[in-house]
Amino acid sequence: MREVAIVAAGMTRFGELWESSLRDLFVQAAAEALAAAGVDRLDSIYVGNMAAGQFVGQEHLGPLMADHLGMAGVPAVRVECACASGGAALRAAFFEVASGASDLVLASGVEKMTDGADVTAVLATASDQETEAYHGITFPGLYAMIARAHMQKHGTTEEQLAWVAVKNHRHGALNPKAQFRREVKVEDVLASSMVSDPLRLLQCSPVSDGAAAVLLCPLDQARKYTDRPVKIRASAMATSTMALADRADPSFLDAVKLSGERAFRQAGLKPSDIQLAEVHDCFSISEICCIEALGFVEVGKGGRAAQDGLTALGGRTPVNTSGGLKSKGHPVGATGIAQAIEIFEQLRGDAGKRQVKDARIGLTQNMGGSGASSVTHIFERV
Amino acid sequence: MREVAIVAAGMTRFGELWESSLRDLFVQAAAEALAAAGVDRLDSIYVGNMAAGQFVGQEHLGPLMADHLGMAGVPAVRVECACASGGAALRAAFFEVASGASDLVLASGVEKMTDGADVTAVLATASDQETEAYHGITFPGLYAMIARAHMQKHGTTEEQLAWVAVKNHRHGALNPKAQFRREVKVEDVLASSMVSDPLRLLQCSPVSDGAAAVLLCPLDQARKYTDRPVKIRASAMATSTMALADRADPSFLDAVKLSGERAFRQAGLKPSDIQLAEVHDCFSISEICCIEALGFVEVGKGGRAAQDGLTALGGRTPVNTSGGLKSKGHPVGATGIAQAIEIFEQLRGDAGKRQVKDARIGLTQNMGGSGASSVTHIFERV
Repeated sequence: MREVAIVAAGMTRFGELWESSLRDLFVQAAAEALAAAGVDRLDSIYVGNMAAGQFVGQEHLGPLMADHLGMAGVPAVRVECACASGGAALRAAFFEVASGASDLVLASGVEKMTDGADVTAVLATASDQETEAYHGITFPGLYAMIARAHMQKHGTTEEQLAWVAVKNHRHGALNPKAQFRREVKVEDVLASSMVSDPLRLLQCSPVSDGAAAVLLCPLDQARKYTDRPVKIRASAMATSTMALADRADPSFLDAVKLSGERAFRQAGLKPSDIQLAEVHDCFSISEICCIEALGFVEVGKGGRAAQDGLTALGGRTPVNTSGGLKSKGHPVGATGIAQAIEIFEQLRGDAGKRQVKDARIGLTQNMGGSGASSVTHIFERV
Repeated sequence: MREVAIVAAGMTRFGELWESSLRDLFVQAAAEALAAAGVDRLDSIYVGNMAAGQFVGQEHLGPLMADHLGMAGVPAVRVECACASGGAALRAAFFEVASGASDLVLASGVEKMTDGADVTAVLATASDQETEAYHGITFPGLYAMIARAHMQKHGTTEEQLAWVAVKNHRHGALNPKAQFRREVKVEDVLASSMVSDPLRLLQCSPVSDGAAAVLLCPLDQARKYTDRPVKIRASAMATSTMALADRADPSFLDAVKLSGERAFRQAGLKPSDIQLAEVHDCFSISEICCIEALGFVEVGKGGRAAQDGLTALGGRTPVNTSGGLKSKGHPVGATGIAQAIEIFEQLRGDAGKRQVKDARIGLTQNMGGSGASSVTHIFERV
């Protein structure tokens, strides 16, 4: 396998971007990445997207996006893995470059969620249609059950759940691309509307529009495009049962554990080698479960980690320095790529007020559904 | 790049399969492929699917299918490229094996179209939503415009269009998996209902349910699983403008030409080296345009080729010996994989009454939208 690097990135602001269509968002992010690398050609394009068919009546995003980028002709396909679509698109692009088939591949993600569709119903199609969605359960409901199971088994408290949101809003306030650039207090979180007990409004990631794109090439060609490439040291994926009810322990995300173990094995690293991570905090409880499953903290101690500041900027292992899905926003197909961009910028020393000092190795973990899929990447400054 | 082979295949019958759900169809095809190779493990799964979110309210097909195959844990993602989703899934699986990352990868495709959705409206989301679908055009309408342009420019006749259907129904009548196993006469085609002038009912592929799966591994490991592996000599893709109106010549499918040229270059072959091909005959006119763009016949002579029997079983270059999309059926996400299975079976000498004698090299060409995407593979018996 050839070694693969990221050499450039582009990303829209995340938020309710009324003035931009699905294709506009993609073009903005992709053009920024191409300009950063100084290239005007691509060998291939991957578009991570969960549900543009349902959100805006548009499938077949590959050729649409190639065309509107001014690159009709270039191979281009969509990769879908619910909220892990971005991570899955990055992984597909990684394989194409690693294989030797292509030298310049754009991995992107985009979602336009604010155009009028019933967002909660559309997102529910990432759960098991026959045994979950059909019966009325939604993702706040599924994650609320995960949270209750975690509270019961490990004594996790509502205050600890709130601390995840407080931390991520603090980080997001420092991120110019974030949807919510304001801090919140624990009291604010605990006073916000109940969405699905015990998850309150300020513990849920928002509905967002946005796009993100990174440019991949073989590591040995990377310095043609940048003097600060970031190597992809591992690209791993795992799945679990589709339905939450089919898992032995609903408080533990086994696909996250498995994708992490595979990534650490590929990279020859262990959790303590990771200096910062972006993990999938679609709800406060999911960040807690993800850092436990990845081995950053002991199982059951994820809530304490947020409360004690272990995962805050300046803590032992900063998690979601971008603001995470909670504060940066969660245009679902774009999220996995946006996570990679945060690590890319951190490892290059470009993260401004969010900068983790001397960051050399970082990780992203992008999840689909209630944990039925998980994609983990490890990156290194070279 | 490692050389890659197909070592096993599985496929449901195509048709209106009321008794089988989306997941049932996938499992049936996948289990058949695994059993044929005698394996009970996979490194990765790709699921080609156009629009299960719209057709049956289910996105996130990767983990769903891995789970229902009894393989929760295995990496699994969906690849979408409208009606070329199957071909695109095969290509993604090819890269993963070629890269050296994985040794046993399932490339599959599935679509469940008969569960009550407005099929024509769902399929229209593969066109340009803003400049085509929104204004009411459907795929029969788009291909009718392609047909009219071809008739005007090249003198192609309604009778020649009908001959494509007659030929493919003759082939399909010999295929036990085909949706329509009956021959039709030119008079039948020309007397069938007008769908979109000049395209009549018997020139349009049907609405179908079905699934197909092939198992890929490195060529140098292939004889562990079969004594008759089929090598993938080329995997190529191209795109064109999304909207038909943006093309200089609507009667010529430039993405098909480009994906063909790339495939021939990869394989070091020319069109005359291809002994049989499965091409994307979603409408009679599209087979004509595809064989022209691939270089099997002169541009403008595609209609004559069908009428003169050049592309029939026994002809110079048999095209769509499976019955094609027209007669075998067109569960859109499954079609690209089903095309590969026809060539796989032909090159192994397993095609029964449809067998092309001494077939050694075959080609598949799978198209999305009105030709905005095209995926071409070349296969060789080894």
